[in-house]
Amino acid sequence: MPSITTVSLVRTVPSGSPTVDDFKVSSEPASTKESLKDGEILVRTLYLSCDPYMRSRLTGRTDSYVASFEAGKPLSGSGVGVIEASASPKFKEGAIVAGADFPWKTAFTAPTNGFIEVPMPGAAQPVSVLGVLGMPSFTAYVGIVTLCQVKPGETILVSAASGAVGQMVVQLAKARGLRVIATAGSDEKVQFVKDLGADVAFNYKTAGDYEAAIRKAAPDGFDIYFDNVGGEFLDAVLKCIRPNGRIAECGMISQYNATKETAYGIRNLSYVVTSKITIHGFIVRDYYTTPAYLAFIKEVSALLKENRLQYKLDEVVGLENAPQGLLDLFEGKNFGKRVIKVTSRAERL
Amino acid sequence: MPSITTVSLVRTVPSGSPTVDDFKVSSEPASTKESLKDGEILVRTLYLSCDPYMRSRLTGRTDSYVASFEAGKPLSGSGVGVIEASASPKFKEGAIVAGADFPWKTAFTAPTNGFIEVPMPGAAQPVSVLGVLGMPSFTAYVGIVTLCQVKPGETILVSAASGAVGQMVVQLAKARGLRVIATAGSDEKVQFVKDLGADVAFNYKTAGDYEAAIRKAAPDGFDIYFDNVGGEFLDAVLKCIRPNGRIAECGMISQYNATKETAYGIRNLSYVVTSKITIHGFIVRDYYTTPAYLAFIKEVSALLKENRLQYKLDEVVGLENAPQGLLDLFEGKNFGKRVIKVTSRAERL
Repeated sequence: MPSITTVSLVRTVPSGSPTVDDFKVSSEPASTKESLKDGEILVRTLYLSCDPYMRSRLTGRTDSYVASFEAGKPLSGSGVGVIEASASPKFKEGAIVAGADFPWKTAFTAPTNGFIEVPMPGAAQPVSVLGVLGMPSFTAYVGIVTLCQVKPGETILVSAASGAVGQMVVQLAKARGLRVIATAGSDEKVQFVKDLGADVAFNYKTAGDYEAAIRKAAPDGFDIYFDNVGGEFLDAVLKCIRPNGRIAECGMISQYNATKETAYGIRNLSYVVTSKITIHGFIVRDYYTTPAYLAFIKEVSALLKENRLQYKLDEVVGLENAPQGLLDLFEGKNFGKRVIKVTSRAERL
Repeated sequence: MPSITTVSLVRTVPSGSPTVDDFKVSSEPASTKESLKDGEILVRTLYLSCDPYMRSRLTGRTDSYVASFEAGKPLSGSGVGVIEASASPKFKEGAIVAGADFPWKTAFTAPTNGFIEVPMPGAAQPVSVLGVLGMPSFTAYVGIVTLCQVKPGETILVSAASGAVGQMVVQLAKARGLRVIATAGSDEKVQFVKDLGADVAFNYKTAGDYEAAIRKAAPDGFDIYFDNVGGEFLDAVLKCIRPNGRIAECGMISQYNATKETAYGIRNLSYVVTSKITIHGFIVRDYYTTPAYLAFIKEVSALLKENRLQYKLDEVVGLENAPQGLLDLFEGKNFGKRVIKVTSRAERL
């Protein structure tokens, strides 16, 4: 009898660093085609998305923009899967489906709402749904196009530039005629973002004083900062950004595991006044129903067709390794957009 | 022979609290009508503006949006005066003139550029140029109308609500149909802002925990925060403002005398992401040449005509008292918009 694997949260972690012991990997018998109720589908998970924003879903906080995971229940998030069996006319067996609320299970039974079928022409790969056309890519687009309204000839600084969002910021900004200054957390990552087209890139971990490093990398300053890290690096940026600078405030991964005691205190916020800085905090899910989403698909599709976009994925194989795969993000151990490879397309339950 | 008084800066004060010893009050013989060169005017100063932003002009910093005062030279700023003598066809004796760069002198000789004549119909008072129609009022307008685009029915929180900017924020917001929550630094000031129309107001100095005080004053939250104080109060606001909140970042008076060691570290900036907050840093001088300026004059003039605006001035009498008058601002000792009354309209040199 086939079995499935589930990853659940043992306890919420309001602050500080979660550990693998806060997660539980368990097994249970798989549902069968015969057990499906009318209108239900049996989905086998191919890939699950592993994203920094999920830290806030481990806190138990109920006042956040996205509900926390509950202790004792499976985690969930964006995923892509294949229909193993269907008791609905909406999806046929073998169809590839995507959704924002895949439970962290190797397979599961669900009603059809919340899933969309993704066409897979030619060499298309299901994982692309989580990658170059996925949520982190759209995040990059909203930050630089919709909110900061970047213009050709401007200079942008982006942190965590080899990450899921950062690598798209680099490439979309270059495609739009900007000068790009990038930072990343290893020499290998720095080389990667240069290969993507960044004009200047440096390893922030070996750079010493952030302010000096930023001024050296961008002696003429910069107009836009795409922030993925927050904390001390953001504090230095506030001193260096040009008057009328814009900041796309996408995330602050350096602070996600901070406690009240270890949270970094930003001391240079007064530059927001004196340098007339605009800071745009945003959550990408607000923009899927705006014209920005179609504009993003159009722009990225065109760049892909012209072979002008790369997208680096960092696959962790096996759902049982997903907890560590998630925790790695907060230490910058991923290189590219992290996904969990759960099962192969060719497998069967 | 008549003499004039000058207030100069003795030494720049990069950080920490300036003292009266950092300023020098001196006397010298007044210029005479006969000494005027062609095209010059002799201006007797009536009022000088005393504003928190001047702290940055004491630092010696050259990278700020407004030049620092120089050691050994007079301070300067917005002022209004009367033409004592004119060797220019542009201004007649007795005309009231305003300018953004009045030296801190009881009288001075200057070319005519940088001065505009202000009509004084009926009961109009020269000091109004620095008051209800002055720079701090326009600052309030730009923050709430141009940048935060407030809408009727929304709720705004404003700090330093009895100050030069804050009292206009309260009244312009009420006139536009908003609910207004206000804070000020004494019970007397709190009563004043209530009298101006604030729906709720509290004394932040006796309120205890800021977050609790804000939540009590605005149990349903608020959409806009007009910041005049920065520091710990702003840190609490970041936790309490509603999703999609906007902040007009006008100034951070609590931090103007801070040193590197005493600067308050903002720990809740990650709420900018999770609550999708937009922060608009701005300097009002950028907006005088935009349509916002005429719109401001129109709106305020209409409200004045309908007797719907008050404007509380806090006069310090005598230029020799101007240094203390300026320093008081950083301890909240002013009550209303502080101006220095230098000479009376009826006097003569």
